[in-house]
Amino acid sequence: MNKQPFARNLSMLTDFYELTMAAGYFGSGYTQKIAVFDMFFRKLPDGGGFAIMAGLAQFIEAIEHFGFEDEDIAYLREAGHFSEEFLDYLRNFKFHCNVWAVEEGVPVFPGEPIVTVEGPVIEAQLIETLLLLTVNHQSLIATKASRVVRACAGRPVMEFGARRAQGYDASLYGARAAYIAGCRATSNTLAGQLFGIPVAGTMAHSWVQMFPSEYEAFRRYAELYPHNCLLLVDTYSTLKSGVPNAIRVWDEVLRPQGIAPAGIRIDSGDIAYLSKRARRLLAEGGYPGAPICASNSLDEHIVRDLLLQGAEVDSFGIGENIITSASAPVFGGVYKLAAVKEGEGYLPKIKVSETADKITTPCLKKLWRICDNATGQAMADYITVYDEVPDTTNGITLFDPVETWKRRSFTGCRARLLSTPIYAGGRLVYTPPALADVRRRCEAELATLWEEVTRFENPHRYYVDLSQKLWDERQRLLQQAQ
Amino acid sequence: MNKQPFARNLSMLTDFYELTMAAGYFGSGYTQKIAVFDMFFRKLPDGGGFAIMAGLAQFIEAIEHFGFEDEDIAYLREAGHFSEEFLDYLRNFKFHCNVWAVEEGVPVFPGEPIVTVEGPVIEAQLIETLLLLTVNHQSLIATKASRVVRACAGRPVMEFGARRAQGYDASLYGARAAYIAGCRATSNTLAGQLFGIPVAGTMAHSWVQMFPSEYEAFRRYAELYPHNCLLLVDTYSTLKSGVPNAIRVWDEVLRPQGIAPAGIRIDSGDIAYLSKRARRLLAEGGYPGAPICASNSLDEHIVRDLLLQGAEVDSFGIGENIITSASAPVFGGVYKLAAVKEGEGYLPKIKVSETADKITTPCLKKLWRICDNATGQAMADYITVYDEVPDTTNGITLFDPVETWKRRSFTGCRARLLSTPIYAGGRLVYTPPALADVRRRCEAELATLWEEVTRFENPHRYYVDLSQKLWDERQRLLQQAQ
Repeated sequence: MNKQPFARNLSMLTDFYELTMAAGYFGSGYTQKIAVFDMFFRKLPDGGGFAIMAGLAQFIEAIEHFGFEDEDIAYLREAGHFSEEFLDYLRNFKFHCNVWAVEEGVPVFPGEPIVTVEGPVIEAQLIETLLLLTVNHQSLIATKASRVVRACAGRPVMEFGARRAQGYDASLYGARAAYIAGCRATSNTLAGQLFGIPVAGTMAHSWVQMFPSEYEAFRRYAELYPHNCLLLVDTYSTLKSGVPNAIRVWDEVLRPQGIAPAGIRIDSGDIAYLSKRARRLLAEGGYPGAPICASNSLDEHIVRDLLLQGAEVDSFGIGENIITSASAPVFGGVYKLAAVKEGEGYLPKIKVSETADKITTPCLKKLWRICDNATGQAMADYITVYDEVPDTTNGITLFDPVETWKRRSFTGCRARLLSTPIYAGGRLVYTPPALADVRRRCEAELATLWEEVTRFENPHRYYVDLSQKLWDERQRLLQQAQ
Repeated sequence: MNKQPFARNLSMLTDFYELTMAAGYFGSGYTQKIAVFDMFFRKLPDGGGFAIMAGLAQFIEAIEHFGFEDEDIAYLREAGHFSEEFLDYLRNFKFHCNVWAVEEGVPVFPGEPIVTVEGPVIEAQLIETLLLLTVNHQSLIATKASRVVRACAGRPVMEFGARRAQGYDASLYGARAAYIAGCRATSNTLAGQLFGIPVAGTMAHSWVQMFPSEYEAFRRYAELYPHNCLLLVDTYSTLKSGVPNAIRVWDEVLRPQGIAPAGIRIDSGDIAYLSKRARRLLAEGGYPGAPICASNSLDEHIVRDLLLQGAEVDSFGIGENIITSASAPVFGGVYKLAAVKEGEGYLPKIKVSETADKITTPCLKKLWRICDNATGQAMADYITVYDEVPDTTNGITLFDPVETWKRRSFTGCRARLLSTPIYAGGRLVYTPPALADVRRRCEAELATLWEEVTRFENPHRYYVDLSQKLWDERQRLLQQAQ
């Protein structure tokens, strides 16, 4: 039984320039002008090989609640720059855009149109900030959580970051994104309630300190929660008191009832050393398989090192490094004009720049993933003009858009369309799958990536290629701009 | 006319272990047990010399909406570990705690009790996550924004980060915290509406691209917004087309009306070089004083370098580096048990650790700032047991709690109590000041700090000392724990 998410109208959560521009288009007779915008990113966080798309469900939620209320209109009137005609337009705002997006949980790569919006330029502009904010945040956290989950190599990861999150929504949607990327549970009760994520948690140090002794604190906990008896053993001394007291309490309370302990948690000190010593004590005490959970400012690098050193850890609790993506806290998705509709066709638009990777790719486009027919392996991504369909019957030859002399041919493959219709003429034509299904899809999609692409450092660059037609169009516009 | 903030009940935004512990205390007859918890932090972000307290108003808002609704109770019942008696307790939850806190906008230092909660242990525990989340986030952003504002050396700073924020709340409360710390405006319209922060923004590159030419885009904008004609000049070429077109449009549209231009914005390229060249072009064009605004992934270090190189920048737009505190995205505030009430007195509690700075300071405490009587200069902070009042009539001698041989005496000073009563027995006894007043206080408080404490790197460590009585108590408990 999930709680309804807070039904907030976030329409006013927009950069003020979206409103001045919208009013400007309105005042310039551009109300019927149809524009095409792409959301894409240029750089992967943490130098990784891919990102994970997330946040689409919340973007849809925001659009479904989009609209300007009387108090919004009153505020904008006071803010001063807007005509009553424009304010009337806002009061009667309706969404007419087409939106295509990559579905949540799917790996995405730099330069790809992960969301495309086509519609009246005013509308497309007014939703920019909300779209970027929503998808940037959740994709950031999903991408980071995926790294941590992969480092934990099959051991369950619990997301514990609420207290260090950047605001309430960051804790909630961050927990959601972390779950998509493979976290097993969250400590955030409201995230559990809103999204159906399993919740986890037993005790803090304060529980142990509130009782006259650690033994009494553990004993009381075991009596109250015999089936969830995970004891925090580092309040005084992990090896001298915590683990021995845990064993004593399990012997006294759980063993007579035939209940297996949920384990111990170590939240400080050297996890490699302490976990190995704790494992020995647990084995000597008759609990060789009692799970050991580790927490304490861990990230993918520390986890990998701990496991390389043979740390005896069965599960991990990860806080700030997932919930803020502390080592790379910004996902730089941008939203750029790609075309303007003219008659039945499109006038492609390009933003030139002295920096090669800041030059945009023009046109209304489609994004495809070239997959091996037999194994499903993702070979490369392929961006075409909207009306092209890649013909893979005789194989396909791709070339690198930067280093164009590099060509690769693939046979026995098919092209999967990743650009999924979300809105058609302002009407929602997509049903977001259940979160558990998004999580499963994410896992399945990751399995289609080359291992070389999933390395933490210096991963192999996955090919994202332009169709010949798209590449020619881009070259033409570039030359025109000179 | 401000919009009401979203009146959300965030009681379920709590780490699940707060609930298992609360139920455990409930089931153990600890409902009347009074505990004292301190929120404090150990490390300053970015290696700075101080942090800025922020978020108190939102913490109060959360407490005022605190309560468990039927759907929450139903969810917790399904989650499984809770007795009906405990669920009844939650359903009838009332807040009885005393809360003291440092007011918003005040500089704070490591180890200080910036919030103290005294009350029934269950209540004090249930609000932990919300308190930490709220104060950690806003204090983080205020602390970062203060660095950026100081680097800009009097030039206005606009917070432009909404699209890169970690969720909606991060964009809103981040804008609020940045405003407290001295930002002049935000691009976030909803933050302007909710908190009365001035909003700013004119155009994106897409505006320029939507018109047949840059000149036409600028001209249209000038006609629509003659009094706010700040033109983005780097869509094609800042010096070859942007600035010349701006001058031409100002000449044609603004000058005949006698209106001064709002200026130009440069969002890419080398800001030092481009701004100096642009200044020359503007002067030659007859607009020597036209303001130049710079944006593009700036932070306090880049801004300082730009100004050292004589960049001709009059105002700054700062995005991701303020709104996520990108170089230090975590504020590590913690919440630790300091005492338990016994009869009329308190049983002090300490958390020992092998790392010296992880050892907590026991007792219900008060935080004081020792200020020079004549100048108001902040000399040091001073932490006492709750029933002590520092006597400064004959001066005061402080000693460093770590390097105890270091002693300093101050005369002609007074002790300002920073621990401000917020709740008394669960009743709100504090009225949060208007945001503009918090911002003014922040500025005034910063002026009382030694310049050496405000350096970006290797700042002088501000003294935070314990009273003799508190220090003795801490030593006694430490020895007892051995």
